[in-house]
Amino acid sequence: MAGSTYGRLFQISTWGESHGRALGVVVDGCPAGLALCEDDIQKFLDRRKPGQNAFSTPRREEDSVEILSGVFEGKTTGCPISMLVYNQTQRSADYREIANYYRPGHADYTFDKKYGFRDYRGGGRSSGRETIGRVAAGAVACKILASLGISFTSYVRSIGPVEIDPARFCEAEISRNPLNMPDAAAAEQAAEYLSKCKANGDSAGGVVECIVRHLPAGLGDPVFEKLSANLAKAICSIGAVKSFEIGDGFSASRARGSENNDGFVCREPGSIQKLTNHSGGTLGGISDGSELLLRAGFKPTPSISVPQQTVSRSGEPLTVRVKGRHDPLIAARAVVVVESMAAITIVDALFANMYARMDAITDFYK
Amino acid sequence: MAGSTYGRLFQISTWGESHGRALGVVVDGCPAGLALCEDDIQKFLDRRKPGQNAFSTPRREEDSVEILSGVFEGKTTGCPISMLVYNQTQRSADYREIANYYRPGHADYTFDKKYGFRDYRGGGRSSGRETIGRVAAGAVACKILASLGISFTSYVRSIGPVEIDPARFCEAEISRNPLNMPDAAAAEQAAEYLSKCKANGDSAGGVVECIVRHLPAGLGDPVFEKLSANLAKAICSIGAVKSFEIGDGFSASRARGSENNDGFVCREPGSIQKLTNHSGGTLGGISDGSELLLRAGFKPTPSISVPQQTVSRSGEPLTVRVKGRHDPLIAARAVVVVESMAAITIVDALFANMYARMDAITDFYK
Amino acid sequence: MAGSTYGRLFQISTWGESHGRALGVVVDGCPAGLALCEDDIQKFLDRRKPGQNAFSTPRREEDSVEILSGVFEGKTTGCPISMLVYNQTQRSADYREIANYYRPGHADYTFDKKYGFRDYRGGGRSSGRETIGRVAAGAVACKILASLGISFTSYVRSIGPVEIDPARFCEAEISRNPLNMPDAAAAEQAAEYLSKCKANGDSAGGVVECIVRHLPAGLGDPVFEKLSANLAKAICSIGAVKSFEIGDGFSASRARGSENNDGFVCREPGSIQKLTNHSGGTLGGISDGSELLLRAGFKPTPSISVPQQTVSRSGEPLTVRVKGRHDPLIAARAVVVVESMAAITIVDALFANMYARMDAITDFYK
Amino acid sequence: MAGSTYGRLFQISTWGESHGRALGVVVDGCPAGLALCEDDIQKFLDRRKPGQNAFSTPRREEDSVEILSGVFEGKTTGCPISMLVYNQTQRSADYREIANYYRPGHADYTFDKKYGFRDYRGGGRSSGRETIGRVAAGAVACKILASLGISFTSYVRSIGPVEIDPARFCEAEISRNPLNMPDAAAAEQAAEYLSKCKANGDSAGGVVECIVRHLPAGLGDPVFEKLSANLAKAICSIGAVKSFEIGDGFSASRARGSENNDGFVCREPGSIQKLTNHSGGTLGGISDGSELLLRAGFKPTPSISVPQQTVSRSGEPLTVRVKGRHDPLIAARAVVVVESMAAITIVDALFANMYARMDAITDFYK
Repeated sequence: MAGSTYGRLFQISTWGESHGRALGVVVDGCPAGLALCEDDIQKFLDRRKPGQNAFSTPRREEDSVEILSGVFEGKTTGCPISMLVYNQTQRSADYREIANYYRPGHADYTFDKKYGFRDYRGGGRSSGRETIGRVAAGAVACKILASLGISFTSYVRSIGPVEIDPARFCEAEISRNPLNMPDAAAAEQAAEYLSKCKANGDSAGGVVECIVRHLPAGLGDPVFEKLSANLAKAICSIGAVKSFEIGDGFSASRARGSENNDGFVCREPGSIQKLTNHSGGTLGGISDGSELLLRAGFKPTPSISVPQQTVSRSGEPLTVRVKGRHDPLIAARAVVVVESMAAITIVDALFANMYARMDAITDFYK
Repeated sequence: MAGSTYGRLFQISTWGESHGRALGVVVDGCPAGLALCEDDIQKFLDRRKPGQNAFSTPRREEDSVEILSGVFEGKTTGCPISMLVYNQTQRSADYREIANYYRPGHADYTFDKKYGFRDYRGGGRSSGRETIGRVAAGAVACKILASLGISFTSYVRSIGPVEIDPARFCEAEISRNPLNMPDAAAAEQAAEYLSKCKANGDSAGGVVECIVRHLPAGLGDPVFEKLSANLAKAICSIGAVKSFEIGDGFSASRARGSENNDGFVCREPGSIQKLTNHSGGTLGGISDGSELLLRAGFKPTPSISVPQQTVSRSGEPLTVRVKGRHDPLIAARAVVVVESMAAITIVDALFANMYARMDAITDFYK
Repeated sequence: MAGSTYGRLFQISTWGESHGRALGVVVDGCPAGLALCEDDIQKFLDRRKPGQNAFSTPRREEDSVEILSGVFEGKTTGCPISMLVYNQTQRSADYREIANYYRPGHADYTFDKKYGFRDYRGGGRSSGRETIGRVAAGAVACKILASLGISFTSYVRSIGPVEIDPARFCEAEISRNPLNMPDAAAAEQAAEYLSKCKANGDSAGGVVECIVRHLPAGLGDPVFEKLSANLAKAICSIGAVKSFEIGDGFSASRARGSENNDGFVCREPGSIQKLTNHSGGTLGGISDGSELLLRAGFKPTPSISVPQQTVSRSGEPLTVRVKGRHDPLIAARAVVVVESMAAITIVDALFANMYARMDAITDFYK
Repeated sequence: MAGSTYGRLFQISTWGESHGRALGVVVDGCPAGLALCEDDIQKFLDRRKPGQNAFSTPRREEDSVEILSGVFEGKTTGCPISMLVYNQTQRSADYREIANYYRPGHADYTFDKKYGFRDYRGGGRSSGRETIGRVAAGAVACKILASLGISFTSYVRSIGPVEIDPARFCEAEISRNPLNMPDAAAAEQAAEYLSKCKANGDSAGGVVECIVRHLPAGLGDPVFEKLSANLAKAICSIGAVKSFEIGDGFSASRARGSENNDGFVCREPGSIQKLTNHSGGTLGGISDGSELLLRAGFKPTPSISVPQQTVSRSGEPLTVRVKGRHDPLIAARAVVVVESMAAITIVDALFANMYARMDAITDFYK
């Protein structure tokens, strides 16, 4: 239950700092018999790699993953899967300067207040590189889900003021543009907006959307272990996330009951469906068999070279411009992180649901 | 880790159904030596009581709490505090009819899919009455926080399309109007809106806002146990919540870094503060010493008498009008639930923070 | 994870003090569809009732259980089961005197050191009455196990120096003698020994043994969640238990490998069995399909009227004789507590085992 | 809560197989500001190294630890500490043969039944090498405890039938003889006994004892989180442990109350002590300020070259002699594992105790 461990049944423990020797994760609770190799993980890590386009940091990171345990003869054994990525470039010198003051929008101040000092190199544990462990674990979770036919569509919905037009939604487009938007025109507009931000030494926020298909009904438990509640925690635990919605989200708060309720229909025997999906795939916090839809709001990258007012550790006023090679946008690279955290949470709910009924238990042990 | 247990160190287990014999909660992990009596709890429960105004259900519920353990000579003993409320009116007959079909917007369908059957009386475990246990535990949490000078201001920020005007914000007003809005004019407008909804057999959504003052810096752990992430889970575990924000929330996703970052200033020696509070009181998910601000978006009450399309358990199409005595608005009665869940989460973070540093541990055991 | 909550998936939270208003338990994580009524629970509670023979306390306790939630139309709903027993006789006056000094062998001193004060009435939370919640939950666990054909034989193996003779083992005898021993001759000898102890105002220790039959192989997880490790915790969490063995226990430490290893044999196709059962039903901490055998060592009842040296809360030396109506033996009434804790632990392992393999998961969600 | 994660507040996740690429541990929840370097860990690992004497396996293992995260400028940062040891010699060929049958006394059969297959190389996850992660984490725990003045004395109490004589107890002797016994004469006798076992291709069991000094009173929580219960789980989770005692253990079950109770005395103002220590350092499961004494019973090494009867995976009868280089005794090398698990458990209890009282919380946040 310490800070870097997540999940009840499918449990991950991430570790590592931005400029430490390595970063990684231990996945405990993965079932035996899943085909798994380093390439499965690497594909996911490559989706969060920087240096892929004009809008991401020019740092060159290889982020090459190694599986150290839990896989034997190409299959998971049921024992913990330890995965790590060694850090290649550790230009700590860039960061020596920031050791002594608090960068606005970063965790520098709160880490110092909590722990008395901090690993200031590149944000240490609060760096975006912390998500390497999440994504490696997410790759495992997605592989489990894929074997059950459950799939994800994740993308950037908006960047600053630029939002996708649902009428132009095109899933294939997501991987064609560097901003992971499913709308080519919006992606172009967003690129212009980002160019201006970058030119000004500024950054932009954005919203990531994630759709999960073919989820069985019944996942999540009543009250505190609602699937929706655990997704909220999973998503809001990602650095820079400030908001979360499921289904219509805040729009539902402006709607009337007659608009927001999803009616039921039975189009073929034995298959009850909802007529609409304002709820975003859960009812009472439990998956209802329709598409799960969630949204994560990311704040703008806090590292900007626009001058900002701050103080040194001892309280002297300073004006700073944060140097270094930073993305002007977090949302695009975070798409795979959102998908990973959702997948990990869903796997946990899938396992927990297996002992919800006596008849299932009796069947299993027959 | 089963569904009805929440918290790591300050842990609550709620139980009970809408029309069962009683509802309650066991609070495990409350420190010894806190002055506590039934009246402390009753005050909180009274804030969620229905039948207080034209816009809440005319059901008469006494909801009179009993403390059965964990308090001795007026003080908590460090042992579990068991609290319960016996159900008075159990008009189950009203509900017999709904046993056989799925009410849109309710958990009827998902409970049936998960468990094979359900306690259909008044929603059973998925009823709003489930929050009695949360609020009783929240009263204990708030009492702990009050003894540290930490206080809450919680209210309805919007109902349907009607939002408060920050320029008219008046804390005293919150308890003066039946809708718990801090703006008398907005409350009046909202009342009109609700009257129309009610006349049409319809219902409205709303947004609850909660401000926490005098929170020390340093609460929350990096990565998965961020204070913000746990608040997201706590809030999104409340029935009917579809969205969550901390600080500027989704607005931050439309902002630029230079607008969103909060600078630092040191107005008097030893006291570093933020110039603004876009972050809503956390940085890197850890409390930063400024006001914590969170928002919970509630969907409209799903029980409406507007005709709706649905199906029976066996799939026959039906048009239903949900009868019974229902609030046309969840948000107003849920203010105290939001406050309770936030308080429980903060107490947990307060305890967890006590062993974050070796010097604190050495001091304690000296 | 607070002190009074136990279990990962099948989770119980007990509460209540010896002389408080009531004692009880919330069982969270019980699957839906289990037939359950108050009589199922009462039968278990009756097994721990005092006043049944010459060697148990003459206190008259009704200990009549009420189920307040989680059961609907005779079946569990999947939601928390809250059960309680109101305290009938609360002769607190007997205990006023002990408020000011530390009874040897009791938790008086440690509760005071930990919490600053204590509910001194009858031991408060550290009383044997605390086990009411465990036993009520144990009844539910045993009912789940019974539906899978898993059964228990639990009894007193030794009292003071008197041990049962395996050659005279008779299961039916267990419930025929007041000491729950499966050997009538040993029971008689033990009764004589206890009579002497009682006449001297003294008390006796004893060992409880528990055999679990028809447990499937594969329960328990490697490393920390070994079935044997969780049983050790479950058993050693019972007040007055000072030792634990599985299988040959300490005898195995005196044996050679060639004596202690259990060979394998395959008597009929598909059914591999062990030739012997020195391991007591687990290998590598995982159930091996043979009988599970565990042993719990109870210390003598600490409340004795033999004069003892102690101190007051302020440190003055005192000689005390503990008054009140106390059993001279804990072991006999604790048989059902040992069985309950074992059952709860096994149910947890049964559930956890259901998602150990990908093929089981794929089958379940097919 | 998956199998390889242990601890509530000070949480460890171990990983790795006997013949995989590496083994390691992530320690999550270590406070910031503890001086820590690889040498601190290496010293502990060296205590469990084989190849140190005639009675341990001649395998040469370097077991050289690397700290990959969580330490900055020589101090822990409050973030997860990842440590690993790369496997040097991986003579998997030795083990190919055992892939197809079940070694008596090993987890081969249960892993196969649970997971459908197993990493058969050297026992895979159920190998004694799994304890590398435990010991690395134990080194951190012991360093925390040392800074509070809490110290350990751990040793082998008996080997097969040879037990130490308390009259000859000499702490300095423990590290002087290869069997870690605090009695030179007993060590010599035990060495003879082991030589005979080895000559016969057989092995021996043993008992490890661990004394913890200067533990403050008040550690552990009532009911399920008793310090004694958690120690029982911690110890019984070590492979090959079949029994556990605290204080007088099973002897207490043969004693009378007047013999077993520890009286209290106040020799100097403010310092209450027990006259004796039959309880072994806990009362009601909470530490009482006296020496904590626990005992772990290890079975004999199951890998023996004495011919044994077993079956192949498909059930054919076989007679096997387990080859390979195996210790004839587990207990001696396990001393540091017992100490590590006890230390980890105590650190957890130390942290949990910090929020047991309101006054402590108020003091901390003043």
